[in-house]
Amino acid sequence: MGISQGVPAEGPGARAFDAVIVGGGIIGLSVAWRASLRGLDVAVADPAPGSGASHAAAGMLAPVSEVSYTEEPLLRLGLASLARWPAFAAELEEAAGRDVDLRGEGTLDVAFGADDMAALGELAAFMDKLGLPVERLTGREARRLEPMLAPSVRGGLLAGGDSWVDPRRVTAALLAALAARGVPLLRERVTGLDVTGGEVRGVRLAPPSSSAGPGSGLRRTPAGLTGGTGDPWAAAETALGGPHGDAGGLPAGPGTAERVVRARRVVVALGAWAGVLAGVPPELVPPVRPVKGQIMRLRSAEPLLGRCVRGSVHGSSVYLVPRRDGELVVGATQEELGFDDRVTAGAVWELLRDARELVPGVTELEVADVVAGLRPGTPDNLPLIGPTALPGLHLATGHHRGGVLLAPLTAELVAGTLAGDGPEIPPACSPTRFEDIA
Amino acid sequence: MGISQGVPAEGPGARAFDAVIVGGGIIGLSVAWRASLRGLDVAVADPAPGSGASHAAAGMLAPVSEVSYTEEPLLRLGLASLARWPAFAAELEEAAGRDVDLRGEGTLDVAFGADDMAALGELAAFMDKLGLPVERLTGREARRLEPMLAPSVRGGLLAGGDSWVDPRRVTAALLAALAARGVPLLRERVTGLDVTGGEVRGVRLAPPSSSAGPGSGLRRTPAGLTGGTGDPWAAAETALGGPHGDAGGLPAGPGTAERVVRARRVVVALGAWAGVLAGVPPELVPPVRPVKGQIMRLRSAEPLLGRCVRGSVHGSSVYLVPRRDGELVVGATQEELGFDDRVTAGAVWELLRDARELVPGVTELEVADVVAGLRPGTPDNLPLIGPTALPGLHLATGHHRGGVLLAPLTAELVAGTLAGDGPEIPPACSPTRFEDIA
Repeated sequence: MGISQGVPAEGPGARAFDAVIVGGGIIGLSVAWRASLRGLDVAVADPAPGSGASHAAAGMLAPVSEVSYTEEPLLRLGLASLARWPAFAAELEEAAGRDVDLRGEGTLDVAFGADDMAALGELAAFMDKLGLPVERLTGREARRLEPMLAPSVRGGLLAGGDSWVDPRRVTAALLAALAARGVPLLRERVTGLDVTGGEVRGVRLAPPSSSAGPGSGLRRTPAGLTGGTGDPWAAAETALGGPHGDAGGLPAGPGTAERVVRARRVVVALGAWAGVLAGVPPELVPPVRPVKGQIMRLRSAEPLLGRCVRGSVHGSSVYLVPRRDGELVVGATQEELGFDDRVTAGAVWELLRDARELVPGVTELEVADVVAGLRPGTPDNLPLIGPTALPGLHLATGHHRGGVLLAPLTAELVAGTLAGDGPEIPPACSPTRFEDIA
Repeated sequence: MGISQGVPAEGPGARAFDAVIVGGGIIGLSVAWRASLRGLDVAVADPAPGSGASHAAAGMLAPVSEVSYTEEPLLRLGLASLARWPAFAAELEEAAGRDVDLRGEGTLDVAFGADDMAALGELAAFMDKLGLPVERLTGREARRLEPMLAPSVRGGLLAGGDSWVDPRRVTAALLAALAARGVPLLRERVTGLDVTGGEVRGVRLAPPSSSAGPGSGLRRTPAGLTGGTGDPWAAAETALGGPHGDAGGLPAGPGTAERVVRARRVVVALGAWAGVLAGVPPELVPPVRPVKGQIMRLRSAEPLLGRCVRGSVHGSSVYLVPRRDGELVVGATQEELGFDDRVTAGAVWELLRDARELVPGVTELEVADVVAGLRPGTPDNLPLIGPTALPGLHLATGHHRGGVLLAPLTAELVAGTLAGDGPEIPPACSPTRFEDIA
């Protein structure tokens, strides 16, 4: 598998982790948790875990209603990961002692005009062909399921198997589960890989003084209306205890506080920032790009909806994800603007314009927050999971809009690979597919 | 003037202020500053100064463009106060060493359709009759002044004398000016008036432990997307120094930490909360009601506009107030919902919908914050300024949409009355007009 096993720890007293996971979003934390459960000695490095795309994500686990005709490999990955979510969530909730609000009432895709109805009909036929359970509904039937739907809804398609989860609760639970297992969380910025003798030996960490401030990490905290904190997990992390700097750090050299943490394997789970990590050989730099998504959280005393509702309004797709506590997530834009994570007036306006076409009552709800996140897009919309051609370098990124959905499967694949007995990485998401091209 | 002068301080060592101003919004702080400049020994009581309607206000000083045909008394008050603003701002900036961003490029009121044009024409004729300088503009002339205006703008009316200011900078400057003069700021919630022998003797303050937390004060901090702090003036207040609890406090009695601060006069400047202060005789309770306003702050690198722009869109009025630093304020809703200060999806959507009709480019701007404030409305839309029938009780509230505009005039009137040599309170805004009715 091209993995460098058994590299001894260098230097007296230096600890070498089995793996350091770079990036504490839902993917990195899931990988670390599953790897730790497999008995591996791992650490997570992130100056602000849970503050990137995972903080912005709505949490739809909707491979069926989000299917695209040309992307059956992605659908298969999604269905495989969706099947793992109930057990993953149950085990996580047990380990963390926290709820992640996993729900399975399905997604209702609604149509307004004749064109929408025709599109839903084609989608239903495609689902039938794939053997996926969907249900065609009239406008009246759709409103019977969801009374708050606009009177102009003419029909719908119910993907009963689709589910959703609260990603903020998931990352909080993962941090608690990691803390409970004693997995170190290095709240520092990784400045690069340490590669010696043609294999990965660890990661370089920025001096703590420069890793604490906003904007100093590889990832920025969500911009704009985040309710005042870009670091929602401070409480959970405190539970990890102890100075993480003691976990295997060696000074990188005199005159600088940069240090190296030794690891036999490094898993890059940096999402949209996976392509900017120093020390990765140019031909192996993962082809991820940031795809900006802006998303609003509204709030009501009682939930407005019983399931996820989505639809196409003015040619743009909008979805509404309800939580048990009355939160209603409205998402999301898709913008190709580089590492711009500003919350913009235009996006807020469009989200609200479209949401009120589906469910007019949203205008009465309180605005809780608006955030922008950067999804890691890839050329073929499939993730990059598993070992690369550089011994010791593994990827878990490129999940684009599917990071929450694909977390259990990704964690299982990467943890299995690290443990040396996992399932084979599906070729469709192996990083080597781009290495071969390059 | 019905003022109780010369009441001796009660109890050994107790200090009696000449006046305690209850409420640290732009009105209360302005009154305190002018009264202190008049040589009076005053204090301000507010658990979170500058966090109420002043924090939400856009800061338009626009008596001309905001004129209503039936409200000439309000127009006269507004013009009188506008005339005072340049000297007030200059003196405040000098005293505080801070800028308040006072600008005087005028308000451009734009029209889209024939009805709008006719309404602007009538307004212009009314202005002409009053001798107020306004200028009629064609659509082309309006766009020459403001190139970012929508192409559909058909004409406009320029009120060249209208001005605006940044209310948040004004309250910050007032706090700094008060600190420089050594005026105590009691960061405590006033629970009621202390009335003995038919005259005001001071105010009762809640125990400090219960005055620090959010929601414990008479006023709530702005809800929703306020960027994380409801207490923007902590830095300025720290400069006031010393434990404010030493400033004349006496325990109210055994078994409670409530205390009384002695004062010969109390000025109620609580804005929308002026009617809920305990200890005011029922017949003198000021008839103010909360009128909710929701307002957005957008941000760009360069200012989009050179002056205030307003217009009527879909029957609702919207205005855009530019700041030199690129901030663009979009306001505001007017809602009669009691003390509800939630930021709602519908208001955000309507503000953005209307703003982009006037200036399409607003959609590119970053959203800095959205807040809701509660204006103190009165039955006749005129403020309540000056002494009441209860000796020692003065009001400075009921300014509705004009608190920022009317601050200099209000401060002059109240400080003059407290000093005993001020100009007469205009009958139109004297509290006695409602006492007579009651």
